[in-house]
Amino acid sequence: METLILSEADVRAVVHDVGLDALMDETIEALHDACLAYDPERFRIPRRDGFDYSIPLPGLLEWMPALETGHGATVKLVGYHPANPERHALPTILSVALTFEVGSGHLRAVTDATFPTAVRTGAASALATRVLAGAGRPVLGLIGCGAQAVTQLHALSRVLDLDEVLVYDSEPAVAASLAARVAPLGLGGLRFRQLDEQSVASRAQVLCTATSVAPGAGPVFADRDLHPQLHVNAVGSDFPGKTELPASLVRRALVCPDYAEQALAEGECQQLDAGALGPDLVSLVKEPAAARAALDGPSVFDSTGWALEDHVVVQILVAHAERLGRGTPMRIESVGADPRDPYGFASAATGAPLRRARGGV
Amino acid sequence: METLILSEADVRAVVHDVGLDALMDETIEALHDACLAYDPERFRIPRRDGFDYSIPLPGLLEWMPALETGHGATVKLVGYHPANPERHALPTILSVALTFEVGSGHLRAVTDATFPTAVRTGAASALATRVLAGAGRPVLGLIGCGAQAVTQLHALSRVLDLDEVLVYDSEPAVAASLAARVAPLGLGGLRFRQLDEQSVASRAQVLCTATSVAPGAGPVFADRDLHPQLHVNAVGSDFPGKTELPASLVRRALVCPDYAEQALAEGECQQLDAGALGPDLVSLVKEPAAARAALDGPSVFDSTGWALEDHVVVQILVAHAERLGRGTPMRIESVGADPRDPYGFASAATGAPLRRARGGV
Repeated sequence: METLILSEADVRAVVHDVGLDALMDETIEALHDACLAYDPERFRIPRRDGFDYSIPLPGLLEWMPALETGHGATVKLVGYHPANPERHALPTILSVALTFEVGSGHLRAVTDATFPTAVRTGAASALATRVLAGAGRPVLGLIGCGAQAVTQLHALSRVLDLDEVLVYDSEPAVAASLAARVAPLGLGGLRFRQLDEQSVASRAQVLCTATSVAPGAGPVFADRDLHPQLHVNAVGSDFPGKTELPASLVRRALVCPDYAEQALAEGECQQLDAGALGPDLVSLVKEPAAARAALDGPSVFDSTGWALEDHVVVQILVAHAERLGRGTPMRIESVGADPRDPYGFASAATGAPLRRARGGV
Repeated sequence: METLILSEADVRAVVHDVGLDALMDETIEALHDACLAYDPERFRIPRRDGFDYSIPLPGLLEWMPALETGHGATVKLVGYHPANPERHALPTILSVALTFEVGSGHLRAVTDATFPTAVRTGAASALATRVLAGAGRPVLGLIGCGAQAVTQLHALSRVLDLDEVLVYDSEPAVAASLAARVAPLGLGGLRFRQLDEQSVASRAQVLCTATSVAPGAGPVFADRDLHPQLHVNAVGSDFPGKTELPASLVRRALVCPDYAEQALAEGECQQLDAGALGPDLVSLVKEPAAARAALDGPSVFDSTGWALEDHVVVQILVAHAERLGRGTPMRIESVGADPRDPYGFASAATGAPLRRARGGV
């Protein structure tokens, strides 16, 4: 009845053992396989829900559950607090995940999901890009150069041959620091050029938007002089009212949501009717040729974040930790010898008197 | 950026320091105060949601979030697996809770919620019973004598003068063992009598139903020869289709839900129209005289389990643990020095090469 607690040090140990490239590749392929095998009868993944608030600062706290029938459940809790970097020197996105045994409800593991969220969001873009982006050595554009841009660039570097990355951030220092942040990845001779947002958008063949633009304040670039076969991974749109892309681009593009129901509520798909959506991520993986055949102009991967992705990456992380003997097993649930005695856990080990009132003798 | 992990041993240490009676009393009074101060503008508590499944065994896994605006959020994850006692020697209800800082989304604490769930469910019944049960020394009846019956009896013993408890369980051995399970509580000269369910129901002045009756298989007793001012704490009904009480009793009683919207969906209130409900738990506490004035026959506290109760009891538990210096602080969230570098946590401490592929040199 123990729960495996993965600390930051345990996740670091996994990264050091596996390597970031191999971990990203494994996540891309595991997510590919999960989509290929995806069966809505086997998985139950409700739309994300959560609290949005403005006190003490604007923020979201969301729960993202995924049930793999008979096998296990993952519940990710994820906070989105755009003031975190400036106020607390913390990432905008902080997250933890829990995995449960579905035969008993026992909590199997607790782990960070901040790092896994970044990795799986990159991996999902890589999967979609592999199907939707044209061949060749595309110029990559990044609008928004925060934490998610690092893993978007990393993931895309695993599926594309990249020479040049055009970068823009509403804070120029953030755009300027991206090259240093990805330097440990050893992306070789990749050239970074810092441009205005419109120049990034119009010179890119593959574009990623990952901004903290406020709801209603989009789009983050204009639908002007764009590459005719531009592929966009739209990562930042994940809240009702928040969109990053020009409506006209969304309307003429093949728009592929990660999870249609959720994307219609909080993604770029908010700008579309349900009938106007292209294939979702599962369909892209299951029928890539059909998706490519439907493609005669720009394409958009509308990435709102899907709990299946979390389920996949958390399983990978926990399995590596277990293989390496990492993590701290702890008895969390208070359970005595008699399942019908909720107080048994407290008396069992010690026989100490349980009835003493505070301050009593 | 540490998270306080409360293990079973930490919860045991709190119980040993505080005492079960004092902890129950503190929970009853804290829940009373929370209801008295309750303001729907300050709290956001969505209806419970979750997965119900039948593979590998019938079970539920639910999430119960509560936001106290500007102060914090509690998310309880709770499993309900009625085969647990026989199959795994585990409680039917297993649960953990997480508390979050709402300024950043940081995970503040992880704790067992199996024990707190039992305590707060008892405390809620005690609060309602204090308002709705008649004066005197009532005979208490318990239909269903599993884990929840222990804390129902304990909580009621804190607000009622009890001499006699009538017990029934569909498994006679479970009814027979209740006295031994509550013996450590030192309930003095309390007499236990094991009867059939109908005799328990018709001789009780205060009744508690806490059964695992299957959806559609209720009621667990008939509306026959009941005490004219019977008060029932209906604890077991917490799932669409699952009810424990006879419809005719529910229709003629003053039915007080813990949380009306949820009780209408999964409690005894499923047998009523929304307009037929009595005051909810908050109203009972805020206006006990009005509730008593409306009472001229039987009453029912329809306890589906409310996330406010979890928020209150988890705060009590964590505060005691902190006071006692208990719990293990751990860095869970993987966060490096640069909030915009999701890989920084892995390189910061060691400078080890991160790019090595698995199996590479």
